[in-house]
Amino acid sequence: VNVKHLIRRKRRGEALGGEEIDSLIRGYMAGDVPDYQMSALLMAIVWQGMSEEETFALTRAMVASGRTMSWDDLTPTADKHSTGGVGDKVSLALAPLAASAGVYVPMLSGRGLGHTGGTLDKLEAIPGFTARLDGARFARVLREVGCVMGGQSEDLAPADGRIYALRDATETVESLPLIVSSILSKKVAAGPRALVLDVKVGRGAFMEDLARATELARLLVATSTRMGLSTLAFLTDMDVPLGRAVGNALETNEAIDVLCGVDVSEDLHELTLLLTSAMLVTSHAAPTLLAAKSTLLARLASGAARDVFIRLIEAQGGDARAAVEGRLPVGRSVPVPAESSGVVSDVDPLAIARVVIDLGGGRRRVTDAIDPSVGVFLSARPNERVRRGEPLAVLHLPAGAANEAAMVARVRNAFTLGGARRTPLVHAVVGAGGVVPWRGWDTVLPLA
Amino acid sequence: VNVKHLIRRKRRGEALGGEEIDSLIRGYMAGDVPDYQMSALLMAIVWQGMSEEETFALTRAMVASGRTMSWDDLTPTADKHSTGGVGDKVSLALAPLAASAGVYVPMLSGRGLGHTGGTLDKLEAIPGFTARLDGARFARVLREVGCVMGGQSEDLAPADGRIYALRDATETVESLPLIVSSILSKKVAAGPRALVLDVKVGRGAFMEDLARATELARLLVATSTRMGLSTLAFLTDMDVPLGRAVGNALETNEAIDVLCGVDVSEDLHELTLLLTSAMLVTSHAAPTLLAAKSTLLARLASGAARDVFIRLIEAQGGDARAAVEGRLPVGRSVPVPAESSGVVSDVDPLAIARVVIDLGGGRRRVTDAIDPSVGVFLSARPNERVRRGEPLAVLHLPAGAANEAAMVARVRNAFTLGGARRTPLVHAVVGAGGVVPWRGWDTVLPLA
Repeated sequence: VNVKHLIRRKRRGEALGGEEIDSLIRGYMAGDVPDYQMSALLMAIVWQGMSEEETFALTRAMVASGRTMSWDDLTPTADKHSTGGVGDKVSLALAPLAASAGVYVPMLSGRGLGHTGGTLDKLEAIPGFTARLDGARFARVLREVGCVMGGQSEDLAPADGRIYALRDATETVESLPLIVSSILSKKVAAGPRALVLDVKVGRGAFMEDLARATELARLLVATSTRMGLSTLAFLTDMDVPLGRAVGNALETNEAIDVLCGVDVSEDLHELTLLLTSAMLVTSHAAPTLLAAKSTLLARLASGAARDVFIRLIEAQGGDARAAVEGRLPVGRSVPVPAESSGVVSDVDPLAIARVVIDLGGGRRRVTDAIDPSVGVFLSARPNERVRRGEPLAVLHLPAGAANEAAMVARVRNAFTLGGARRTPLVHAVVGAGGVVPWRGWDTVLPLA
Repeated sequence: VNVKHLIRRKRRGEALGGEEIDSLIRGYMAGDVPDYQMSALLMAIVWQGMSEEETFALTRAMVASGRTMSWDDLTPTADKHSTGGVGDKVSLALAPLAASAGVYVPMLSGRGLGHTGGTLDKLEAIPGFTARLDGARFARVLREVGCVMGGQSEDLAPADGRIYALRDATETVESLPLIVSSILSKKVAAGPRALVLDVKVGRGAFMEDLARATELARLLVATSTRMGLSTLAFLTDMDVPLGRAVGNALETNEAIDVLCGVDVSEDLHELTLLLTSAMLVTSHAAPTLLAAKSTLLARLASGAARDVFIRLIEAQGGDARAAVEGRLPVGRSVPVPAESSGVVSDVDPLAIARVVIDLGGGRRRVTDAIDPSVGVFLSARPNERVRRGEPLAVLHLPAGAANEAAMVARVRNAFTLGGARRTPLVHAVVGAGGVVPWRGWDTVLPLA
């Protein structure tokens, strides 16, 4: 592969061919294409972009760089991916809930970095739980439980791992086609036939701007559809934390609350049901969102979904009794009282996330260890009323935490009291048929 | 140095600081900054550009990466650089001519690549001539002869050599600030106090477009001036070959014709006089171009300039007698007769250059060996009349050359007969005082 030729053409804004992209990725993995040429090409891609056709070819080439899984005898299959946000623990309840309705979920999840939490970190708050599954065990758990939650394995889409590390070192992360191919290559390699994407928008999301997030959702859907997956993307709010819990053990407990039918915040309950319903619709396990929802509500009510989660934890080595019956232990509680009465109009998700990171509950660098017991629980969410002296939130601190007063002040400052807040939880749905505004559960989905 | 931070800011179009650029180049030379980060940054520079301030800082940092020469006891000093063209042998006559008028010329020259010839290749057509001079010998020749023509030494601006190789491998050559800093870092390291730039425009030049070439000239002048050199740039025509000779020995012979006062084509004579005169003016050895020209014409007439060239050749190990008295031997002559009568309206410089490369007289790759004896001599230049059957040109072929008929046809096809051609030899002059159109030898120069 003549890499200089590819760089020159991309620099000029021309499109690269599918076979050229294949050869490029093969050459890179074989060591024939040096990092310095790849990084120059990546910067040219950041500059000039890539067409849908090129993004598809890059995704396909990255999938082809490693092992792929397929589940032809398990039907239907579906997976979900979120672009990440503060308090987003949806996957933990969604996977067993979908499985309880007959959809197999072969899920590969990541760890948290920066303000975005990671599903694996939340799961590993459960004593004994492991996400390090070899191929055989991953398949066995999926077959026996109906869902499985593994860590990203180096033999799946290995080109993505190497290219992502290079992008991280060369400031070439922020490019839609590169983001899309990175997300999808890992998801596709795990073999689901349907995919639901949760593209978050707002201060706590990767993208703050709805137009840009919509562009990301469209390219994700177009590429995933071309890869043969039935796909829907939901543009959802991440301008405030999702649910009440931020911090690993707290979030796992909150997800268990969802599965146990305990009263949880409306947004978390709604989004978990919606995304799981969409998995049922895209995988043809249910004809409509409303039909799927009614199935899922029944699975929650019967305890079937909770039971799948218990079996999942056990199959992956975790102590299900500790988690589901007793809930996971969390750090010492320190309330954050309101200094005046009023309605919560805003909670800054980044401010909350930074407190959790500073308490040791998140990572600044990939290699940081984390403390699952720390976090912030929002006693009051937007549109809820508090009285002076009542808690806005509860901090859960590590054993020897010093600057308690400073942390309390930071959490308090993340809250604004004032008028009610009316940001919709879901903005729009994107499918192969286009983008449609969200009008509730009877929205006509833009499936092809 | 936090290279990621620099890449991120450049990617966004922000300017980098002088100290940041210094640290970057030092870090790169020390091996602390890997090639893959440098190439990503270079592509971001191709994309977003660099200000005059940044270009100056980069040039300064590249000069500081190695040894620098200074000639405080030799006054005045000046050098010339051409952006390269077909048949451009000006440096060979210019250096001894300037020296004969009392201006010291510490010149570092390069080899040819692609359609552009290199001064060193032309000089090395002289038996025994070497451009490999260590620092002591370079200085001794300069002091004793008044000029010296060395090859680019690895200890002068070594950062330029490494960065150029990386740019070549990553298609990041075409960027004005990178071109300017590369050209000037080598020139500045050799220590002249004045610099004349010949920025060529046209089909045979690096830039075909006058506006873009003017932009290059302005940035070269601004940067060179900030580096402390008194600088003028001339935008000159390279839409047809310069002079009549294309090919190394042929061109050296033509340059010797200039020094010996033999009748040579008007354009070559004029441009050699003009650029040398500009060296006298920028180095304060003459008050005006016209005064400089009259001095130089006297040095040509007296044989003083030719005598300096003879001493230069001898001081650098060459056989001056063979070169200057007998002229260098060239390959077997094959005339290219005109198929009809008329006035030459055009000679395509790239077509001629490609014939010379295909005969073995130029390089496709840096490592190619070249045959100095081959070339094309233009018997008829633009605006000259030929009759049917008379030679348009003479091919000089290597010993065992096969496809003679094809070469004759290619040279013939490079010619167009028709009306007269009126492209000016000089378009404009650029100095610290701005850009002025060229109005002949009494043009008021835009010196600061």
